[in-house]
Amino acid sequence: MIVDCHGHYTTAPQALWDWRKRQVSEKKISEKELKVSDDEIRHSLESNQLKLQRERGSDVTFFSPRAGSMEHHVGDAAISAQWSRVQNDLIKRVCMLYPDNFAPVCMLPQSPGVSPANCIDELRRCADMGFIGCNLNPDPSGGWWKEVPLTDKWWYPVYEKMVELDLPAMVHVSSSCNPAFHFTGAHYINADTTAFMQLIQGDLFRDFPRLKFVIPHGGGAVPYHWGRYRGLAQDMKKPLLNEHLLKNVYFDTCVYHQPGIDLLLKVIPVDNILFASEMVGAVRGIDPETGQYYDDTKRYIDASSLSASDKKKIYEGNARKVYSRWRI
Amino acid sequence: MIVDCHGHYTTAPQALWDWRKRQVSEKKISEKELKVSDDEIRHSLESNQLKLQRERGSDVTFFSPRAGSMEHHVGDAAISAQWSRVQNDLIKRVCMLYPDNFAPVCMLPQSPGVSPANCIDELRRCADMGFIGCNLNPDPSGGWWKEVPLTDKWWYPVYEKMVELDLPAMVHVSSSCNPAFHFTGAHYINADTTAFMQLIQGDLFRDFPRLKFVIPHGGGAVPYHWGRYRGLAQDMKKPLLNEHLLKNVYFDTCVYHQPGIDLLLKVIPVDNILFASEMVGAVRGIDPETGQYYDDTKRYIDASSLSASDKKKIYEGNARKVYSRWRI
Repeated sequence: MIVDCHGHYTTAPQALWDWRKRQVSEKKISEKELKVSDDEIRHSLESNQLKLQRERGSDVTFFSPRAGSMEHHVGDAAISAQWSRVQNDLIKRVCMLYPDNFAPVCMLPQSPGVSPANCIDELRRCADMGFIGCNLNPDPSGGWWKEVPLTDKWWYPVYEKMVELDLPAMVHVSSSCNPAFHFTGAHYINADTTAFMQLIQGDLFRDFPRLKFVIPHGGGAVPYHWGRYRGLAQDMKKPLLNEHLLKNVYFDTCVYHQPGIDLLLKVIPVDNILFASEMVGAVRGIDPETGQYYDDTKRYIDASSLSASDKKKIYEGNARKVYSRWRI
Repeated sequence: MIVDCHGHYTTAPQALWDWRKRQVSEKKISEKELKVSDDEIRHSLESNQLKLQRERGSDVTFFSPRAGSMEHHVGDAAISAQWSRVQNDLIKRVCMLYPDNFAPVCMLPQSPGVSPANCIDELRRCADMGFIGCNLNPDPSGGWWKEVPLTDKWWYPVYEKMVELDLPAMVHVSSSCNPAFHFTGAHYINADTTAFMQLIQGDLFRDFPRLKFVIPHGGGAVPYHWGRYRGLAQDMKKPLLNEHLLKNVYFDTCVYHQPGIDLLLKVIPVDNILFASEMVGAVRGIDPETGQYYDDTKRYIDASSLSASDKKKIYEGNARKVYSRWRI
């Protein structure tokens, strides 16, 4: 079985984005005013994610709201809470319509400067609905990086609930309001790198030995600079990274060319890598060098020199281990 | 000949840092109050950079003030201008004492929100003293990223002067005041990635076909995500990256493990790679996996499968091409 642990509902029906526009401008709009039929949901997926799953040979996608649309920086915590409910409810409907193809991952109602304790209710609500993980945004300000590092006790309330509910988090920022950072080309990758470095500096998993993080986009710059990170940890008198972080931190395979995937597979232990493509996502074109879609990451894994049993870990086994609430 | 294009004076005599402390606290202090003897300079280098050059077999280092100490965010433009003169003068003295071992690269008197036109005088002064390049900080705010992208016309005055003087710039941030970003583990790498993505989004080299940028630290995350960047450029209807950027943009080899260097050499054209180690710098330990210093990057290039003529380009030829004012 091929499990893609990183997919967003980038093709959600226009009615969702229209409702959001009204929510932001009018401030008061009922969730009931969002009208999306089951057929509209089917239509939004059949010629996109479902078609690509079939064509590329993946079976199930762990599916969350469009990352760029989480927009934790827009409005206040109440706006964010309502938007999270709306988006997560829609994800739930997708997964009920296609229980074999999608498993639900939620966004959280974060808001800049607001304690992440405000995410607990939504996290519990989603767990009750069968969600298997969440996306945690290390920078709810949207590119201004005003929050304390992920290792700060400020974040602990949401970690406690994640552990209690056995929900892993993918550490994933949303869109960037900072003109310096292109969102998918800089902000996403920087956030992955930044989060990992924060984890090196701290001792978070001493306090939360059962907390699980997935760093998306192949871990940002981390595997490419693995020597730098091992060396920095060493200079800081931290344990070896295997011991310090790799019992709790995982990387996905959203790296869109063969040499990048080969590096990832060479450097990061196979037990810490989860298959993902983030389709339909950041890069939608066909690579003229290969004639294949850049984000068809399964081709790169298949073409790698890993053993069949290692590939099975990446395609399925590790996902079952990390997203342990997921059962099919 | 082995040319290391990326070294900072991280081991400068304590008197320099003491003077800086007084400059920041007292605001008014004469440059003449900095007393550093030639012997102190020799002492600061003999058992550090010079010893490592000998041990590792590199011949000359392009040498600039300690990146983390540029601190463009501290004080105002006048403070920054004086600090730049002091630091650059000291670099010049180093290079006069050891003309075979070091060639001078200057810092610029940038200041947050101040037009980079204020760098022109110092750039000209340094060129007159024989400097061969400069370090340009895309984020003088020190981790808050308040400046417009490098492709904005706001930066053009300094580019015009760089082109006129035939001085390339290494795009290099300074220390981070933002607790989210560890400086050498996140801020540096993020800045490299961010700068490259800004260049993809813009058309800077249409306006400045002779402008030359070196992206340090192996290009941040860029080579690892080369497929992503090629794909994003394609989605944006930009030319192929070779055409769009690689006539003007170069990467150094500050990547501290063999698989990372192997990826860099595989993905980026050999004509765009300049040897560098950034020693003595971010990572100072010995890699337990190899028994060698992490930042002894020459070992990785030597061990790569490149041809002798390609290695010669990386070690010397490309440096001569990019830093064309340098003559030995």
